[in-house]
Amino acid sequence: MKTLILISHPKLADSATQEFLKTAGKSQANVDFEYIDDLYKETKIDIIQQQQQQLTKYRRIIFQFPMYWYSSPASLKQYMDDVFTRKFVVANHLLRNKELGIVVTLGDAEAEFQAGGSEHFTISELLRPFEAFANKAGMTYLKPFVVNQFGYLEEDQKELLLVDYLQYVSAQMPLSLDNREKWLVDRLTHMKQEKSAADQQKLDLIIGSIEAQQDQIDDLKVNIKMIRDQEE
Amino acid sequence: MKTLILISHPKLADSATQEFLKTAGKSQANVDFEYIDDLYKETKIDIIQQQQQQLTKYRRIIFQFPMYWYSSPASLKQYMDDVFTRKFVVANHLLRNKELGIVVTLGDAEAEFQAGGSEHFTISELLRPFEAFANKAGMTYLKPFVVNQFGYLEEDQKELLLVDYLQYVSAQMPLSLDNREKWLVDRLTHMKQEKSAADQQKLDLIIGSIEAQQDQIDDLKVNIKMIRDQEE
Repeated sequence: MKTLILISHPKLADSATQEFLKTAGKSQANVDFEYIDDLYKETKIDIIQQQQQQLTKYRRIIFQFPMYWYSSPASLKQYMDDVFTRKFVVANHLLRNKELGIVVTLGDAEAEFQAGGSEHFTISELLRPFEAFANKAGMTYLKPFVVNQFGYLEEDQKELLLVDYLQYVSAQMPLSLDNREKWLVDRLTHMKQEKSAADQQKLDLIIGSIEAQQDQIDDLKVNIKMIRDQEE
Repeated sequence: MKTLILISHPKLADSATQEFLKTAGKSQANVDFEYIDDLYKETKIDIIQQQQQQLTKYRRIIFQFPMYWYSSPASLKQYMDDVFTRKFVVANHLLRNKELGIVVTLGDAEAEFQAGGSEHFTISELLRPFEAFANKAGMTYLKPFVVNQFGYLEEDQKELLLVDYLQYVSAQMPLSLDNREKWLVDRLTHMKQEKSAADQQKLDLIIGSIEAQQDQIDDLKVNIKMIRDQEE
């Protein structure tokens, strides 16, 4: 599965969050990045055709941006207005059955995004226009990935964020325990190829123990299901 | 009360709706227009200061645009990202106590904008980012003015639309019967000045009858209130 991450950020060079996510994402095979603000330094007419062709190659498309006035920065909207023509999206259905993910970074505390909070509305509500777009395009709308005030995160929180982000961009959805573990095994297997024989052995042990754990979890699930069935 | 209408429309010259609204709006004293897409043909740095100064002069600010992918066209977002700096909006509160209106024109039928309809979400839900902005800026968010598929309207429907639009941009809110009539009397009084003596007499008769009607309505309201009070 291939993923395209479309980044909209007018001040990309100044953003520690975007730098962090970029470094993380670049380690992934099958994940490509496109910087919308850079695109618009070129001529506009070329962009549309070239981007439409590019988009069709990906199974998952992710809009990644900092929240600016409760939406994406203008450059993503410009991209949508230009590249997502009605012909491309509605008449020819060229985004149908793809997944639409959103990675949104917040400067204000996520907890304020609710009724009674200072931002009043939930992230889900504020991102409705993107959800409505996915709906119109026949895309599967993925649960948005919210990066809450990156600047305040401790190092261990950043590490967790990194793994979650990598899974969001490349693991199979939904992000169940099963799919997360499959993703991890895939990654370790991939990593093995470039290692020494000794390291490969160690990685095999780790992979083996994850898979054994997976088997145990599967057994537990079967047991739970049996108990439940008896209760009914 | 002064109103500024900020129009965002990348193809303004081709839009019969915008042409119609513009002609209508131009007849109003105290209503000014600004074409965002034109602004951006100038240099960007000048815009910000000049626009911030301009905005402070108005009591009502209206965003007027066709719905593009469930939001405004990119140019309005660009304007918001540029002109509505945190310093201007949040630190210095320079939009506080102003009114924020939205005039949105729809290509798809308004009836589809609901749960179960092909657009899934209501106009209110899709415009949440603007409502959240008004909230943050300390502005009063006015009930949006929705122009539903202008191209399909009959002539008499267009006339009604015209009056409603003019009231939306310049009458006192909320648009109660009272405020609508005051607006009409103001307008007729204003119109009188440029007319012949004979026409002035006719207009006086009309104004008189509207005011008499208003008195009758006021009487009715008092009566209804008395009846209600007795019931309780």
